Amino acid sequence: MSTDDRAAVGRPGAYAKGVARRREILDRAIEVFQERGLQGTSLRRIAEAIGVSHAALLHYFESREQLLVAVYEHAEAQRDARDRPPSATAVGVMTRAAVDNAEVPGLVELYSTLVAGALEAGSEHGKAFFTARFERVRAQLTQRLRDEQSAGTVRDDVPAEQLAALLVAASDGLQIQWLLEPSIELERTLASLSVLLRPA
Amino acid sequence: MSTDDRAAVGRPGAYAKGVARRREILDRAIEVFQERGLQGTSLRRIAEAIGVSHAALLHYFESREQLLVAVYEHAEAQRDARDRPPSATAVGVMTRAAVDNAEVPGLVELYSTLVAGALEAGSEHGKAFFTARFERVRAQLTQRLRDEQSAGTVRDDVPAEQLAALLVAASDGLQIQWLLEPSIELERTLASLSVLLRPA
Repeated sequence: MSTDDRAAVGRPGAYAKGVARRREILDRAIEVFQERGLQGTSLRRIAEAIGVSHAALLHYFESREQLLVAVYEHAEAQRDARDRPPSATAVGVMTRAAVDNAEVPGLVELYSTLVAGALEAGSEHGKAFFTARFERVRAQLTQRLRDEQSAGTVRDDVPAEQLAALLVAASDGLQIQWLLEPSIELERTLASLSVLLRPA
Repeated sequence: MSTDDRAAVGRPGAYAKGVARRREILDRAIEVFQERGLQGTSLRRIAEAIGVSHAALLHYFESREQLLVAVYEHAEAQRDARDRPPSATAVGVMTRAAVDNAEVPGLVELYSTLVAGALEAGSEHGKAFFTARFERVRAQLTQRLRDEQSAGTVRDDVPAEQLAALLVAASDGLQIQWLLEPSIELERTLASLSVLLRPA
């Protein structure tokens, strides 16, 4: 049973209100992180900045990590909801997602911080979230690459699973390099992967 | 003038002693991070665990970030000092470094945490360190890839600069995926980049 489910028990309409309130908190939390960065923003200080009580924030998120992961999911969902023409290829999908990420202030920083945190002992929520997320993204790309290999548009001398892992890795790593060195052309460099994946 | 230089002024032999003491602190700090992880390890708590005073630790490192970056540099230098046959290719160099990183407990976590921290506002030391580090690694790989392109062993339809940025990104990103999902074959997947870089 999630926190939202608990809040809804026995109160008609409370679930929808809880969901809406949670969304409001996430919208405001994104702004707080964009204004202040992530460092030094304890759950208590985030509550102050959002204008809710610490207890109210804890009602929706059990820990700072849970709030941050929810903020990331929320920002990613907003990014995916943009009206963009679908990409036909695995490289196109990854490149588009990376460029869209790069356009949301603070999103690459948040992602990098959460992923690094997920590697740490004791970060069970983040570890579970990112392990599942990487698996899902790799599986989707693997399927797409397999289709492209069958259609003869992607080389088949490297297994699709390995290509998928490399595409995700290249995209994650290049967003970081681009943030530190903006002269790195994120879109063009990622798009050049399509040259490397062409059948020989 | 570095902290070590200041310590050495007017005291014969103090510089060498300062360097040795700094190295001792770094050796012990690596153990502390490997035992406890990075979270919740303030500079004060690290000093306690190492068995030096907080003031003594501050003599060598002005901030937790500076200590962490120094620990990373120290661990990387130890890694590079291993007696390993040199790799002839850019992909070989990157793959070897990634596999060596993966064998040092806590090193990928430390690297990921420091890089994520370097993206944050206010992280001037980390930002300068990793911006310079990425630039140096990319420049070395670019030179190597250009030589391979001239020799006809690496495709030349993608600029060497872009290939270098992609190799670094793929290596960084894949180490993280491998930590969360050890069934990902780090060495084999990175080595498959050599297939992608073969001339058509």
